[in-house]
Amino acid sequence: MNRKMVFFTIGQMLVTEAVLLVLPLIVSAIYGESCLFAFLITIAVALAVGGLLLFTCRTGNQVIYAKEGFVTVSLVWIAMSLVGALPFYISGEIPSYVDAVFETVSGFTTTGASILTDVESMSRGLLFWRSFTHWVGGMGVLVFVMAIIPNVSDRSIHLMRAEVPGPTVGKLMPKIKDTAKILYIIYIALTFIEIIFLLLGNMPLFDSIVHAFGTAGTGGFGVKGDSITSYSPYLQWVITIFMAIFGINFNLFYLIILGKLGTALKSRELWCYLGIILVSTVAITIDIRPLYDSLSETIRTSAFQVSSIVTTTGYATADFNLWPGLSKGIIFVLLFSGACAGSTAGGLKISRIMILFKLIRKEFKHMLHPRSVTGVKFEGKEVEDSTLRGVSNYFAIYMVCFFIIFVILSFEPFDLETNITAAASAFNNVGPGFSAIGPMSNWAGYSPIAKIVLSFAMLLGRLEIFPLIIALSPRTWGKKA
Amino acid sequence: MNRKMVFFTIGQMLVTEAVLLVLPLIVSAIYGESCLFAFLITIAVALAVGGLLLFTCRTGNQVIYAKEGFVTVSLVWIAMSLVGALPFYISGEIPSYVDAVFETVSGFTTTGASILTDVESMSRGLLFWRSFTHWVGGMGVLVFVMAIIPNVSDRSIHLMRAEVPGPTVGKLMPKIKDTAKILYIIYIALTFIEIIFLLLGNMPLFDSIVHAFGTAGTGGFGVKGDSITSYSPYLQWVITIFMAIFGINFNLFYLIILGKLGTALKSRELWCYLGIILVSTVAITIDIRPLYDSLSETIRTSAFQVSSIVTTTGYATADFNLWPGLSKGIIFVLLFSGACAGSTAGGLKISRIMILFKLIRKEFKHMLHPRSVTGVKFEGKEVEDSTLRGVSNYFAIYMVCFFIIFVILSFEPFDLETNITAAASAFNNVGPGFSAIGPMSNWAGYSPIAKIVLSFAMLLGRLEIFPLIIALSPRTWGKKA
Repeated sequence: MNRKMVFFTIGQMLVTEAVLLVLPLIVSAIYGESCLFAFLITIAVALAVGGLLLFTCRTGNQVIYAKEGFVTVSLVWIAMSLVGALPFYISGEIPSYVDAVFETVSGFTTTGASILTDVESMSRGLLFWRSFTHWVGGMGVLVFVMAIIPNVSDRSIHLMRAEVPGPTVGKLMPKIKDTAKILYIIYIALTFIEIIFLLLGNMPLFDSIVHAFGTAGTGGFGVKGDSITSYSPYLQWVITIFMAIFGINFNLFYLIILGKLGTALKSRELWCYLGIILVSTVAITIDIRPLYDSLSETIRTSAFQVSSIVTTTGYATADFNLWPGLSKGIIFVLLFSGACAGSTAGGLKISRIMILFKLIRKEFKHMLHPRSVTGVKFEGKEVEDSTLRGVSNYFAIYMVCFFIIFVILSFEPFDLETNITAAASAFNNVGPGFSAIGPMSNWAGYSPIAKIVLSFAMLLGRLEIFPLIIALSPRTWGKKA
Repeated sequence: MNRKMVFFTIGQMLVTEAVLLVLPLIVSAIYGESCLFAFLITIAVALAVGGLLLFTCRTGNQVIYAKEGFVTVSLVWIAMSLVGALPFYISGEIPSYVDAVFETVSGFTTTGASILTDVESMSRGLLFWRSFTHWVGGMGVLVFVMAIIPNVSDRSIHLMRAEVPGPTVGKLMPKIKDTAKILYIIYIALTFIEIIFLLLGNMPLFDSIVHAFGTAGTGGFGVKGDSITSYSPYLQWVITIFMAIFGINFNLFYLIILGKLGTALKSRELWCYLGIILVSTVAITIDIRPLYDSLSETIRTSAFQVSSIVTTTGYATADFNLWPGLSKGIIFVLLFSGACAGSTAGGLKISRIMILFKLIRKEFKHMLHPRSVTGVKFEGKEVEDSTLRGVSNYFAIYMVCFFIIFVILSFEPFDLETNITAAASAFNNVGPGFSAIGPMSNWAGYSPIAKIVLSFAMLLGRLEIFPLIIALSPRTWGKKA
């Protein structure tokens, strides 16, 4: 393995993180907060460690293969989380480093699960950094940085495969570089538009930026203990709609920009996604109608929670813990589904589920006519056999990971409902669960070991399992490799 | 589709059921119970309907294909359950016909979930019939009957594929007929040996027979409200060991009879199965140690519950509802695993899980070396590609079914823990779950609609999904078919 290149890239990314940290530094300066020093120290650490890696691991051999791609992405995410946790810890606002790492991993992986018992007492600088990690992690920062650095095109395809979620990697342009740039332009533009809409509803500027970050990355960190509950119905609707928008495959926005709206609207995944949102919202609206005063409030509450969970954002305007069984059942299933591939959402992804259903249909045909040979079409194209195998194998390892995480969490003194939804929520990067980790509660009650396991689960979900396991496998680091 | 042949076979099986019903009839005669008349009426109904089908559907065309095989097996199981429920209903001991059907499906599918609130007040004849359905359903009655009827060999292979669980159908002998006979001889012999062992522990003869039926079929119906709790430690150990034995692939017993013990012990699935039992028992023993007086009692209680759940039997000597989180977590996972393929156990089956793990490992290799082509070996043999695809597709449809059953159950006024374990327990043919359907409780609280859905789930699990869905698909019954 080309170890030098791996660590050189980690160095590049830590320096990048130092640059990113300037933003919350400015915020804390504006508000005159003492956490400013925590950011300064962290920037120094990031520059020192990053610089050291850049200096010691310079190499002429820039060639990397799939394995290096997986290892690099995993280690970069771990390193950025460990460094990104420092401001919380150094400032003393999160006294435990494990808690700080949990919070940061939860940020970068756009999970939004928090160990904070009183979010409203946090300083502005740290609240900004917390939500900014969502925004950075949502699109995947590594691919973007690789794309803007010159002469690294052979690195970027393997990195992109490892960092971008979904069953296949869609290339909008012949060059990865250009694809990454376009995706980021769309991402920035949509975030900006959401900020405007939030400001129009009289949300303070700081809150607007933080919530736009949380929505864009489908993360879920906010600034209030009751999440979005106390904001106006208009603001709740804006966030509902933008959560749904950020759950759409970004390739479709590019098609729309190119004037190919017709082609974009042909996406089966899009319609399936919108269908799931509609059906779930209607079913929950009927189910929870008796709990709310007006029909409009019921629809708004239902739509918000559905949009929040299906996109794996995790904002809340109601404690769905108190809802009847059917609504909780639907939310439980949505914890796993996720939104469209190529969006910032976590979970299984709808295209993967659609391909699974097609595979099931194919299997039925095969049972009845063992000699028949039929392919699987998706979005109008024949799906390659290796992709099909990849999807069903991914699903198998996905369920295995889920069960393992759940069993490890069973050591904790919580009920089955808490642990099972904690495993699902962390692994699918959603945020809230049921019972003790409900939307109006937090994850502080878990033991430090469980928090480490949950942090690992969040990374596992965000990077779609394979990269992290390959990176941590002893064989990868063996002599022969 | 060769409809006449399908209904002719259903007729044959209803007549067979009439013959089977003679046994509980004799039992009720011995004990002088009034349910005798219920059995007489049911036998008359079975003979009448069966005879009518045999008479009207005679056909010279005995050829059937895969589709007819699936349809026949599904409809036979449904028809036998609907008729088998009559004694409970006619006798008035289960006043609701839906409840009676639930109880009978639970019997034939070897689930062992009961709607009885007071099992000890039931008549002996009906208790015998209830457990006898376990024994009949455990090995699959259809294949056996087809095997002993002359001139139906072309029918039996398709029926066997549809009725025998597991990823592949192992043929011990060139002829299905002989395979089925050998399997049944082993089955009867083992049941007989268990009865002897139970009698040696001073269990009454009636109880011994009923519990041997329940163990052999890995069902779980008993005669007492507290299941096996009030029997002696010796009897609990006998049942623990026999449950584990009936979870082993029957092909291995045949190898042992042939003197090929060495070959039998080479089975990876066997060692994996025993390993799961050992590890789970040790973990639970450590976890629940503080709850019991002596270490021997703790080990016995732990081993009994593990053996009962992994083999999907469902007997209990403790209310694991009250156990700590880790033990409940392990039991939750075991609800899904099931025991060996080719045994009477339900669930996913261990060989299937092992193949899934091998597929996952293969996928890792493929991620690292996209051009490499590697096969998957299981039990020393290369696994066919279609079997591999079958296993991963089965897993996908299995999880989809589980989630659908769970969502439908969410309409019921139970908590998430009850509904999620009810779906898992019924679908995997286990019997008990957590919370409201714990091992010392019953399923009476579910609504009639839920009971119908759960009955369907039990059949879906026992027949491994495909046959039932094909049988109920409108396309199967279309004009062209």
